Amino acid sequence: MKTYLECFPCMLRQALEAACMADADVRQQRTILNRVMGLLAEVSVDSTPAETGYHVHRIVREMTGVRDPYRLVKEEATRSALQLLPRLREIVDQANDPLEQAARIAIAGNIIDLAPGIQFTLEATLERVLHQPFAVNDLETLRQALSQTESILYLADNAGETVFDRVLIETLEQPVIYAVKGGPTLNDATREDAIAAGLEEVAEVVSTGSDAPGTVLEFCSLAFRQLYDEAEVIIAKGQANHEALGEGDRRLFFLLQVKCPVLGREIGVKPGSIVLQQS
Amino acid sequence: MKTYLECFPCMLRQALEAACMADADVRQQRTILNRVMGLLAEVSVDSTPAETGYHVHRIVREMTGVRDPYRLVKEEATRSALQLLPRLREIVDQANDPLEQAARIAIAGNIIDLAPGIQFTLEATLERVLHQPFAVNDLETLRQALSQTESILYLADNAGETVFDRVLIETLEQPVIYAVKGGPTLNDATREDAIAAGLEEVAEVVSTGSDAPGTVLEFCSLAFRQLYDEAEVIIAKGQANHEALGEGDRRLFFLLQVKCPVLGREIGVKPGSIVLQQS
Repeated sequence: MKTYLECFPCMLRQALEAACMADADVRQQRTILNRVMGLLAEVSVDSTPAETGYHVHRIVREMTGVRDPYRLVKEEATRSALQLLPRLREIVDQANDPLEQAARIAIAGNIIDLAPGIQFTLEATLERVLHQPFAVNDLETLRQALSQTESILYLADNAGETVFDRVLIETLEQPVIYAVKGGPTLNDATREDAIAAGLEEVAEVVSTGSDAPGTVLEFCSLAFRQLYDEAEVIIAKGQANHEALGEGDRRLFFLLQVKCPVLGREIGVKPGSIVLQQS
Repeated sequence: MKTYLECFPCMLRQALEAACMADADVRQQRTILNRVMGLLAEVSVDSTPAETGYHVHRIVREMTGVRDPYRLVKEEATRSALQLLPRLREIVDQANDPLEQAARIAIAGNIIDLAPGIQFTLEATLERVLHQPFAVNDLETLRQALSQTESILYLADNAGETVFDRVLIETLEQPVIYAVKGGPTLNDATREDAIAAGLEEVAEVVSTGSDAPGTVLEFCSLAFRQLYDEAEVIIAKGQANHEALGEGDRRLFFLLQVKCPVLGREIGVKPGSIVLQQS
């Protein structure tokens, strides 16, 4: 997906929020906004929002000197999600279709996304997503793909959401490689966040080698790209991965909540939709 | 109120929406956004959002050559509001306190504001505002001020909202001067919009002489400033007038809905609040 002009105000808001998270004072916030506006004035609309976001959050980290502005927020998200873990497992245990319920849970966790600037409560979101009809539903294709694969590459999204991913991974029979960001960006999960959520107990945690939000392949390490190229089934969480990853790669299954009108238009669904989509 | 950094993304969104309203193509939209970002990079945080908005919407009009991008939207807003007029009058007729109900109606109409980018339906807003507790309630001070004045200056806000203002004006005993913008800006009411809403039947319609959103006094005509200086009681509608007009002028009564968190923080109330506040 390309960067639309509607993404510009959103990027500017994200930059300001990230600057505040990094405890920048007002003068520093202003300098950051001005630099981000300079970036936006030059950015190619052919770059994806994930690439643009990469540069935006890099500016904030560089100018504040704060390596991980969202550290505390991410830790709190993981803590809150872990409190829900027994209940999430119970839901899957009691399900007629454990894969569907676990996929819904993983999608519910995708609400923990600080990019679109929406308010949420975890419990209410979980209730909603467990019962909401899918706007795009390729569950049966995913089920079939899973029945024929030896292993699964799972592209993580945000800290805290990791716990919801863990529940889905626990229902999968094959070994899972869980790919997190190579460094802090927005509230995306890093290795540290994945470990705090217990992902090492259920998957092999690897790094994309990049600190872009979403999996921007050209920014990723060679080692990760090799993993990616060899994968048979790829579960890609969240908006940024949908924005970043090419269309038409049938190995890819996107699991996400649509939290912005631009991506909604791109997919052809309304904001608030839940999506399980084969690329 | 000064322009906060949180206003920057909002201004950028407004510029894009106004450019779309003016049927600008994507290339033109981009040029407009870049020029607005150049403006924002330079703008003094001591200027009010109304002043900044003035420059933003001027850029859109100049670069598209469309004098009144919101013309059709404004006409539609006035038509919808006029359909409600009989019901609005009935509410006041049946009220124990006609002034309070008419003030609530005028405040309900303030939802027709295309600056903050919120969705609304007129009927649901009316129901809500008729019953919602005031977050700031200086109704009794207004009542007293009205009992002692010979005339009232009424600063209009948006097209369509004008119809709701008309209902309040019909309950006032004194002659009312109704001040509209000197030219199109956002969906603010101009003389043309006020006439379409029937305001000439109940008030003397004058122009501020300025096409800034909100009443930015230094941009207004000398004739209007004289009217303003001589006024005994001033009813000022909407966020932009609250942002633009100085604090502590006890002649001023602000009637508005709080539709953005920045103004909410400034007044000390939550977004969604209804406010009847003496300055």
